[in-house]
Amino acid sequence: MKKLSAAEMVERVVTGDRRIAARTITLVENEMDEHHEIMKLIYPHSGQARIIGVTGVGGAGKSTLTNHIVRKLRGQDKKVGVIVVDPSSPFSGGALLGDRIRMQSHTLDPGVFIRSMASRGYLGGLSKGTYDVIRIMEAMGMDVVIVETLGAGQDEIDLIHIAGTCLLVHTPNMGDDIQAMKAGIMEIADINVLNKADQEGADTSFRQLRNSISAAGFEAGAWVPKVIATVSMAAKLEDLKGIDELMDTIAEHDAHLHAGNHIDRVRFARVEQELGVVFKEKMERKIYNELKSTGKKKEYINSIIEGATNPYSVSDEVLNF
Amino acid sequence: MKKLSAAEMVERVVTGDRRIAARTITLVENEMDEHHEIMKLIYPHSGQARIIGVTGVGGAGKSTLTNHIVRKLRGQDKKVGVIVVDPSSPFSGGALLGDRIRMQSHTLDPGVFIRSMASRGYLGGLSKGTYDVIRIMEAMGMDVVIVETLGAGQDEIDLIHIAGTCLLVHTPNMGDDIQAMKAGIMEIADINVLNKADQEGADTSFRQLRNSISAAGFEAGAWVPKVIATVSMAAKLEDLKGIDELMDTIAEHDAHLHAGNHIDRVRFARVEQELGVVFKEKMERKIYNELKSTGKKKEYINSIIEGATNPYSVSDEVLNF
Repeated sequence: MKKLSAAEMVERVVTGDRRIAARTITLVENEMDEHHEIMKLIYPHSGQARIIGVTGVGGAGKSTLTNHIVRKLRGQDKKVGVIVVDPSSPFSGGALLGDRIRMQSHTLDPGVFIRSMASRGYLGGLSKGTYDVIRIMEAMGMDVVIVETLGAGQDEIDLIHIAGTCLLVHTPNMGDDIQAMKAGIMEIADINVLNKADQEGADTSFRQLRNSISAAGFEAGAWVPKVIATVSMAAKLEDLKGIDELMDTIAEHDAHLHAGNHIDRVRFARVEQELGVVFKEKMERKIYNELKSTGKKKEYINSIIEGATNPYSVSDEVLNF
Repeated sequence: MKKLSAAEMVERVVTGDRRIAARTITLVENEMDEHHEIMKLIYPHSGQARIIGVTGVGGAGKSTLTNHIVRKLRGQDKKVGVIVVDPSSPFSGGALLGDRIRMQSHTLDPGVFIRSMASRGYLGGLSKGTYDVIRIMEAMGMDVVIVETLGAGQDEIDLIHIAGTCLLVHTPNMGDDIQAMKAGIMEIADINVLNKADQEGADTSFRQLRNSISAAGFEAGAWVPKVIATVSMAAKLEDLKGIDELMDTIAEHDAHLHAGNHIDRVRFARVEQELGVVFKEKMERKIYNELKSTGKKKEYINSIIEGATNPYSVSDEVLNF
């Protein structure tokens, strides 16, 4: 396998070369030396896709919903990138949830590009790699990039910052605890999907969702989050429910974004988030280089425990800016 | 009110002056100019208290449990600091949950010092102030500091890093979704408390908790997380359940920490966490000073949106290390 330069790789990514795109993503995800150079070259080719976030607790049916959204978008001849952020727990070592993406039907479609990403760990937020991979998929020419995350923490918040349209997937009877935890999130997701709406209790859950949103209050002209009931899993396509309504609502939200120039705010928020993440990574690397690699960190910590110094004095000393 | 120097304030804190301690905490929490100077002086007087973390979803009864733990520790003549991390949602503006600490019975006790802290926002983790306030309470002479957080994200993880003993409070019938989300956490909390154990379904929940822990597997000599059933709310003290058993288990865990020199690991982890937080704050301030205050951040973001630059080049330019 010939070693390509960063420029050569990006050139091939831009032509839609899937094999090279996959290799580029791996380099970026593993933060290899070429990483920054590649991303600097990717950026001018990126930024135009619609980003749809799909989040919600495990078992809500995010993957099957994503699958249907991909199918519908393909029917509109859109190229679709899908990033599944994989919530592996650093504690139990394994996957937090058993459900895995069921995307088999799309894996042979050249208009769909799917990638799983590691999350930063339990509730730790989206990894920097996720932002980079969205950019790479945009450079490949994807019209829409769907990012699917487990809705259980910082991931969800990060996703809201970068997605144009954010879906929060619920199921009936999730319990008051979850509802309470979601109180803030429900109001900022653009579309609340009540999936598994054929289950008992769905009507009550649907009403609860709608009531909690209408109780929140929104400014005039602002998008009021919608609630859509869906059935994303069925033996026959005609037994699915709400998928068309969901697609219409996604389109309606996209039109809303463009009508009011809200899209500028969305783009700004996305870059602001990306910039913050890149800054933090650079700083964390600086700390790492100054401390961990030299074994100095352990010395400092022990001195602090002994009372000889403190974190404030250490940070003055190490980060002398 | 005479303006005290940082040294004078810390001197008074160390004598246990509650009024000055409260003022010191406010200065530190608001990151006033004296903040770092105060903390540098506080550190040598701190580090010796037992830190007990109490976490769990809203409505689980964390506050009433904390209240009983305080009562029991006071019975042992321990001085107790309590920090309640207040989960205000940045989105809805209000409190995420209705339950507030019910600590009235202790507020007049000079051996108890209670402080509410803002959280960093929805799922954003413990604020740096929390770490500082623990140190200040230690400097005041508190034997035990209890930190109570809403168990719904990074807060919980941060708490596990700093607490010697961490309690995770459950209630019966929390639902499979929550259980799945908690899968990793349950194994690392030192004590799982099934509160409201008089409710229907408690026996099943208790068995489920025990089974999921025994399924996890632990190394020989490691602490195997305990499960304790409690009733923390009752009209009469004699109708409470499990509080004595909980206190015994907390003591047992503390003995375990000291027997195996695990306490060194706990102290190291705490300082490591604090050091990381102080570093990050210093770096964030650097970014803020370089970018936000001068309006340059907006310029950079717009240039990135226009494709003229990218976050990697901007960070090279701004953080030239």
